[in-house]
Amino acid sequence: MKGIIQDVKGRKAVYGDDWSNAFAAGPRIFAPIAYIFFASALPVIAFGEQLSRETDGSLSTVETLASTALCGIIHSLIGGQPLLVVGVAEPTVIMYSYIYTFAISSDAVGKKLYLAWAGWVCVWTALMLILLAVFDACNILNKFTRLAGETFGMLIAVLFFQQAVKGMVGEFSPTEGEDEKSPDHSFQWLYVNGLLGVIFTFGVLITALKSRKARSWEYGTGWFRSIIADYGVPLVVMAWAALSLTVPRQVPEGIPRRLQTPLPWDPASMGHWTVFMDMAKVPPGFILAAIIPAVMVAGLYFFDHSVASQMAQQKEFNIKKPSAYHYDILILGITTLICGLIGLPPCNGVLPQSPMHTKSLSVLNGQLIRKKMVQTAKESMMQHDSKSKTYGRMEEAFVEMDGSAAPSAAKELKNLKEAVMSEGSKEGGESSFDPEKIDAYLPVRVIEQRFSNFMQSLLIGVSLMAMPVIKKIPTSVLWGYFAYMAIDSLPGNQFWERIVLLLITPTRRHKILERPHASFVETVPFKEIAKFTIFQLIYFLICFGVTWIPVAGILFPLPFFFLISIREKILPKFFQPNHLKELDGVEYEEIEGDPMRTRSMSLRQRTNSRDAGFEEEAEVFDELTTGRGELRLRSASVSQERSNQARSKKTEHGILNAFLTDAKGCFFPFCAGLSWEFLGRLKMASDFFSFLTRKRKDGGKQDM
Amino acid sequence: MKGIIQDVKGRKAVYGDDWSNAFAAGPRIFAPIAYIFFASALPVIAFGEQLSRETDGSLSTVETLASTALCGIIHSLIGGQPLLVVGVAEPTVIMYSYIYTFAISSDAVGKKLYLAWAGWVCVWTALMLILLAVFDACNILNKFTRLAGETFGMLIAVLFFQQAVKGMVGEFSPTEGEDEKSPDHSFQWLYVNGLLGVIFTFGVLITALKSRKARSWEYGTGWFRSIIADYGVPLVVMAWAALSLTVPRQVPEGIPRRLQTPLPWDPASMGHWTVFMDMAKVPPGFILAAIIPAVMVAGLYFFDHSVASQMAQQKEFNIKKPSAYHYDILILGITTLICGLIGLPPCNGVLPQSPMHTKSLSVLNGQLIRKKMVQTAKESMMQHDSKSKTYGRMEEAFVEMDGSAAPSAAKELKNLKEAVMSEGSKEGGESSFDPEKIDAYLPVRVIEQRFSNFMQSLLIGVSLMAMPVIKKIPTSVLWGYFAYMAIDSLPGNQFWERIVLLLITPTRRHKILERPHASFVETVPFKEIAKFTIFQLIYFLICFGVTWIPVAGILFPLPFFFLISIREKILPKFFQPNHLKELDGVEYEEIEGDPMRTRSMSLRQRTNSRDAGFEEEAEVFDELTTGRGELRLRSASVSQERSNQARSKKTEHGILNAFLTDAKGCFFPFCAGLSWEFLGRLKMASDFFSFLTRKRKDGGKQDM
Repeated sequence: MKGIIQDVKGRKAVYGDDWSNAFAAGPRIFAPIAYIFFASALPVIAFGEQLSRETDGSLSTVETLASTALCGIIHSLIGGQPLLVVGVAEPTVIMYSYIYTFAISSDAVGKKLYLAWAGWVCVWTALMLILLAVFDACNILNKFTRLAGETFGMLIAVLFFQQAVKGMVGEFSPTEGEDEKSPDHSFQWLYVNGLLGVIFTFGVLITALKSRKARSWEYGTGWFRSIIADYGVPLVVMAWAALSLTVPRQVPEGIPRRLQTPLPWDPASMGHWTVFMDMAKVPPGFILAAIIPAVMVAGLYFFDHSVASQMAQQKEFNIKKPSAYHYDILILGITTLICGLIGLPPCNGVLPQSPMHTKSLSVLNGQLIRKKMVQTAKESMMQHDSKSKTYGRMEEAFVEMDGSAAPSAAKELKNLKEAVMSEGSKEGGESSFDPEKIDAYLPVRVIEQRFSNFMQSLLIGVSLMAMPVIKKIPTSVLWGYFAYMAIDSLPGNQFWERIVLLLITPTRRHKILERPHASFVETVPFKEIAKFTIFQLIYFLICFGVTWIPVAGILFPLPFFFLISIREKILPKFFQPNHLKELDGVEYEEIEGDPMRTRSMSLRQRTNSRDAGFEEEAEVFDELTTGRGELRLRSASVSQERSNQARSKKTEHGILNAFLTDAKGCFFPFCAGLSWEFLGRLKMASDFFSFLTRKRKDGGKQDM
Repeated sequence: MKGIIQDVKGRKAVYGDDWSNAFAAGPRIFAPIAYIFFASALPVIAFGEQLSRETDGSLSTVETLASTALCGIIHSLIGGQPLLVVGVAEPTVIMYSYIYTFAISSDAVGKKLYLAWAGWVCVWTALMLILLAVFDACNILNKFTRLAGETFGMLIAVLFFQQAVKGMVGEFSPTEGEDEKSPDHSFQWLYVNGLLGVIFTFGVLITALKSRKARSWEYGTGWFRSIIADYGVPLVVMAWAALSLTVPRQVPEGIPRRLQTPLPWDPASMGHWTVFMDMAKVPPGFILAAIIPAVMVAGLYFFDHSVASQMAQQKEFNIKKPSAYHYDILILGITTLICGLIGLPPCNGVLPQSPMHTKSLSVLNGQLIRKKMVQTAKESMMQHDSKSKTYGRMEEAFVEMDGSAAPSAAKELKNLKEAVMSEGSKEGGESSFDPEKIDAYLPVRVIEQRFSNFMQSLLIGVSLMAMPVIKKIPTSVLWGYFAYMAIDSLPGNQFWERIVLLLITPTRRHKILERPHASFVETVPFKEIAKFTIFQLIYFLICFGVTWIPVAGILFPLPFFFLISIREKILPKFFQPNHLKELDGVEYEEIEGDPMRTRSMSLRQRTNSRDAGFEEEAEVFDELTTGRGELRLRSASVSQERSNQARSKKTEHGILNAFLTDAKGCFFPFCAGLSWEFLGRLKMASDFFSFLTRKRKDGGKQDM
């Protein structure tokens, strides 16, 4: 209870600012809003289609969009941490699918009472979440490690890929429950639909993957490149959907197949806002049984929500306003309850949108402060002020813009001060400091406010009106998008990177050391890595097997909970503690490979390059963050020396020795970061882990 | 005449060796044979299909394969330089297409006498080639520069792409002259055929481009990787052709469309071996008119053949046996005559197969010598011989294997000697030299013989029997292959690289300097580069326009000949001589970008890496050769210092200054090297250019 009260106090104090700050930022605030809106809307649509297939249309895109909008608005208005973005995520979709299969398996519930029963699941879930919020939940959290997190992340990736393949192949076979006369049943048209499906699926997959790299393209203006990088995937989906409308007229209606979702104003959608009335009809036995899925959902939500919130306020962002973990879990419980009662799939905090949200706000703020300070510096130099005077005025400007206390500002601007003072001719003389380089010395700042979150939720609600357009998206385009999400999620997942490492031919392993790589590659013997990875792989296959069990599949999160005790009790018997620590590491820190030295420049050094502008800054951010929005902690100097060690080792004793003998190597643990562009939301376990480790790092100072 | 006699004398002396050396090499000689066979066969098949479309089936894959086999066998038996590979190339296809359109445009010739008239073209061409051989032809050659070469290369690339697009789109429309009842005419099946066409075209294009990088993959054994890298593209074509056979049974015969070529034993193919009998029927006026295309063909052939031959004996290969440029042109004349008389499209020397041929033979030989010498060295060290003794025995072994005179060997093994002497403890003591590193010090050697060339030609002849299988290749697969050839040809073409440079946003230009790049980027002001490129672009568009003129299109090589005098008379008025020299440069030499330093290691240093094996060696060769098989002359040290200069410039005055002020930069001209994987053959002009520049470099010492 203490936690909640504290949170409320903290946020109440700044609630006014949460709105005023937004308006201070001016119209440019709409850039981050649009950015997050597109990042959220597309997966919600895709999950909606998946859900409508799994539940024979009981739920569809309409419900997922509605839920996301509703919960988003509630959270942005009365929620604790306004940087946290919520939405319908994959755990919800998976659980709701299992709940459906379970419901229809018994006549007592059936399709008719499916939503009512799901409502009960939400009631129980809400109850548990509220209890978790009221009582300190950290003790449970501490037990969870990345091992479980990454295995789970991999499972989701595979499930996505399965969905994509199943979907694409499905384009060749008729959809159930369609009249025999539909063109869908003549072989030729079915075959045409299938071929179009193949083209669209691969088309979306390939173009989406390419668009991700846009920011570092060398062609097109920076403006164009950042548009592609920020909105590329939605644009790709739109482009292919548009292309799908150009099929010749002779092709019958319904080829290629498109989203099958009722319009928001159709009875099908209107029907179930009154689900809570049916909930009484559910037999008591089932009401109790609903506790089982509720436990799973509560667990998943609790982790996912907390971690998303934590990722949105990493200390590298220099967040000034207080966190509100407990209070947000409480709110989550309430929104879950509401969704359950009106028959909507509930929402929870999502990755990587939450950190993406913070990031976009900090980039924007960076520009604002920069503009002001450059101007001040230039004026000051016009008047040939002394170095110290120049710096003084810049500091004033910063304090004014940032609203932070002068002393703290002085501390944060240390680098800038040095730069201004050092550069330039004689002592006390004028500074030859180039104001354009100022970005390099400015601390990261975020516009902390509720407006952007509120607006993007509102836009999602508005997009419900666009359903007639959304329905035009071919299903095969979504399969491509699913495949994209799956593939895009792998880099950064250390489990995946270790599997890849096993596949590399021994003679080529040194190439790993020549580019940025996880530290375990150098500090853990190859044999050990192999042993650990193969164990993880087998365990993963077991978990994957569970998802195939018809009704008991609903228990699929269980093996991951078991993994906690396996990690605690059994693994230490087979691995040295320091190896386990490396393979199951703490911070995200890469070691630089030598040939890529340039990439090892830190954010500071990097933005120093003469063409540091908005895009450039954004690009650097991209480089320095994992797909799930976690900032990589990379220290050029140290990693330099280390990689040199590694290389000398390599050339002297051959690469395997490098793996074996590099004992000097201190620990640079490397935290999962399942790079989940629109999807990170799913790796709550791993996310959750890094979340708690940070807690540990900050010596539990974090107010939970 | 002198030239020819000299050539004949020279080759006669070594004719015996040309065969015995092959058998000395043992069965491993079949590796290069298979390699070159696949590299030659596929394009010949593709060109055959193109030809059969352009000439309504008068000529097809059967004729192109037959001609390639016939000319290949003749050349390998009585030709001068046996390393030179011949085949039906794109100039032939283009000219024969124009000849056809011209022939059918007049009733006097028509389709019936097309081949007879083409025969006359060959007669005239042969005559001119023989004259070119008899009289010294170098004077003409000296006038040709890369400007023309690359513009022509670009034209071919565009024509290929045009062919690919036309072909793919054509899959949606019915083929002419087919009965209305064929499924080809029902919309659905036509549409299915089109969609399959799209899938196959892009499938082949993407997979082929990927397979090219195989050698540097990190997965799979080196053996597997080099198979993919060496035979990837043929394998890709086979794989997709096989896939195309898996279309469901309900799809009617002929969907997807496959090669339309008669079998060798069909009357259609048998008909025209007696073309020379019809040649008398061609009206005298047309016999004379045949001189016009003949001039074009002779010009193209003369250049292409000479350059292919020259590329096959670059001095970096340490070719020991004499060249035979004049005599080979004579032989070319004769083979052209023969082909003309029996109604086959003639052959000429092809790129990059010719240098590929030499390369594969030198890699093979490298292994053989290495094996022997490592063995000797090890024995010697077992017996604790002194350094000098050890080296002595190694030199003996080398002389024995290489058959070169001891003194010359001693000179070539200087590096090795130093290595053996330097490494190791006290003077005169044992050497701690690691025999495994020996590759690094061995001179490049080629097994110069006729057998491999003879065998691969024979195999092409044999593949005629496989025509029933070849016919199973879908046409859309070939369109993908054409697109692949076009795209793969662009990197390395400086014209293309300059166009790209213009598209790069100014703020990103410095990235060019961070990786290997042509020297002009640093030594010529950006404005000048832009001016030169835009002029070239406009001229290129004019040339492209000419190819669209119905009958006069046959004159398409003319603008390129005009370009000679434009380059001589007009351009110097607009550009500084040293800028022209850079933009129209001489040797292929890259400047290293800094971050990629590792790549700047020379062949020697590189093979020094502990896992230097066959694949490794081959990979290094790949890295150090342009797509057309020209060895890059890259000196790490110098380029290092230069690129450092560039970078310091960049950081001091910003990138544009780097472009403008880097005057100190001595010349590292960078020769076209239109990277034409199976197709380099087409850039005869540019190839020809580098051919003559080398001549110039060697102070005309080359015996022509």
